[in-house]
Amino acid sequence: MAILVTGGAGYIGSHTVAELLDRGEEVVVLDSLVTGHRESLLGGKLYVGDLRDKEILAKLFAENDIEAVIHFAASSLVGESMKDPVKYYDNNVYGTQCLLEGMQKAGVDKIVFSSTAATYGEPEKVPIEETDRTQPSNVYGETKLTMERMMSWFDKVLGIKYVALRYFNAAGAHASGKIGEDHRPESHLIPLVLQTALKQRESIAVFGDDYPTEDGTCIRDYIHVSDLADAHIRAVTYLRSGSGSNVFNLGNGLGFSVKEVIETAKEVTGLDIPVAIQERRAGDPAVLVASSDKARSVLGWNPSRADLKEIIRSAWNWHSSHPQGYGEA
Amino acid sequence: MAILVTGGAGYIGSHTVAELLDRGEEVVVLDSLVTGHRESLLGGKLYVGDLRDKEILAKLFAENDIEAVIHFAASSLVGESMKDPVKYYDNNVYGTQCLLEGMQKAGVDKIVFSSTAATYGEPEKVPIEETDRTQPSNVYGETKLTMERMMSWFDKVLGIKYVALRYFNAAGAHASGKIGEDHRPESHLIPLVLQTALKQRESIAVFGDDYPTEDGTCIRDYIHVSDLADAHIRAVTYLRSGSGSNVFNLGNGLGFSVKEVIETAKEVTGLDIPVAIQERRAGDPAVLVASSDKARSVLGWNPSRADLKEIIRSAWNWHSSHPQGYGEA
Repeated sequence: MAILVTGGAGYIGSHTVAELLDRGEEVVVLDSLVTGHRESLLGGKLYVGDLRDKEILAKLFAENDIEAVIHFAASSLVGESMKDPVKYYDNNVYGTQCLLEGMQKAGVDKIVFSSTAATYGEPEKVPIEETDRTQPSNVYGETKLTMERMMSWFDKVLGIKYVALRYFNAAGAHASGKIGEDHRPESHLIPLVLQTALKQRESIAVFGDDYPTEDGTCIRDYIHVSDLADAHIRAVTYLRSGSGSNVFNLGNGLGFSVKEVIETAKEVTGLDIPVAIQERRAGDPAVLVASSDKARSVLGWNPSRADLKEIIRSAWNWHSSHPQGYGEA
Repeated sequence: MAILVTGGAGYIGSHTVAELLDRGEEVVVLDSLVTGHRESLLGGKLYVGDLRDKEILAKLFAENDIEAVIHFAASSLVGESMKDPVKYYDNNVYGTQCLLEGMQKAGVDKIVFSSTAATYGEPEKVPIEETDRTQPSNVYGETKLTMERMMSWFDKVLGIKYVALRYFNAAGAHASGKIGEDHRPESHLIPLVLQTALKQRESIAVFGDDYPTEDGTCIRDYIHVSDLADAHIRAVTYLRSGSGSNVFNLGNGLGFSVKEVIETAKEVTGLDIPVAIQERRAGDPAVLVASSDKARSVLGWNPSRADLKEIIRSAWNWHSSHPQGYGEA
């Protein structure tokens, strides 16, 4: 039986596919390739198509014996979500509804789902725990929370079991050096910092250096993409064991400041990285980190690449050898 | 300029259309006629079509100068929602997304929305107030809550102002005697009781007579459908005045017991209504009534047909003169 990975040609998706293949799993990928890259797939059977296309979903479920789904496919730019809510409801909420309908028809009853720590909104406390209040502060987070709630009803009514994984920033690249991070446009700190080291950008913008943190810059949570991949696969194992639906944070517990990321990148690359201090951005809390105690104890998740230097070194390995990512824009 | 009423050929929709026409408003109706009745429309311009059909929405907004939308179109059977969640997410959530997209494209920025007191789930206290916890106990309530949350984001991001009206049971019929309640299947107490009086049913089932209420039967909240229609139109006026988005309960504050409804129906009809006491149903709270203090003070809503006898008399006026509703099944 195979595992279906939606959005399997995306950043976290492709690393999860690589990890599944390493473990001898049969993999089927559904990806529209709108933001994903065909080159990022190290194997598996690819269907190029959209979640909202019920015909391709029916074909995929008919042609393959799918045991479980790992669901990454979604629009995930916070800024864009606050300009075009229809796109986010359509891709994320309606897309997930179509996927669940396809699973129901095919009798597939396990789904692991890439949620987000943006479901919490402004945190009540840090590190954030799974039982904390969810109150998204943007449409992206709202659509992911809606997807979680939808899944809880598909569980209650139809017995489709789910695991939702909530995390902040994926970072780093695959140990093989073959796949890594390539978003267009790029909005994530570590690739932006490394592109600055590569002189593809003049400087890296730091939004505020007067926060109540040790060095004045914001503290954020980064998890190595291969550790995230591992967590998604552990969640499949968890559901295979007959466990009920659940929600887990994937956090590093401490977080790293923006300045710390830049300094570590300078050290790893040996290159200059000019910084441009700018005004704080509205809605940026000083510290955003999630507790992963529950994932550690229940899933046995033990992120082995949690060291910032190792994360940045693996990212640099990819960026320095693929300065144009997967190719010309 | 016209008011678009989605689901305008439904029970509450048709009474709202009648009320709008009485007040000289121009009315456009979108209704698929899947559960609505063409005969229930006393006027207005009807488009037969589905919310999820983006072409008919575009045509409707192009051909009419729509000022505001009153949105009733939805699937609304609690029991069905717990068997077929896809239908409820598709008709209610995705349908509303399509409607909001159409409004955005046409520049329409006011929507009044038929929500439900089922958004609260098991009440924390009665009467329920708008600030009470929302925790739906069925898919129907969940989809309506999701629609409310979606609208709050379309307000924040695009400035589309909304009023959500939460209520339990609409009841009664139009004073003209021309329109009334005809659901197929019928699941509402008052029509079922009156169909029993008409000998169309052998007996009326009462689920539990050992609740901690005065007569042992459940207490529920009934609002005359014409008072609901009035509240929807007041909400349009409220948005026209430039007021921001808001949520209001429409409740009668006290509620009526099932036994009280049956006894009053016997009195109004002068007919025998055999009762069959059955086991309690899972998930039926003893008392469900909503406070309407906020709607009274902010919208100036003053339900003038709140008397149970008057509600049942108006329903009986319709049922006795239309024993087959709008026609053969």
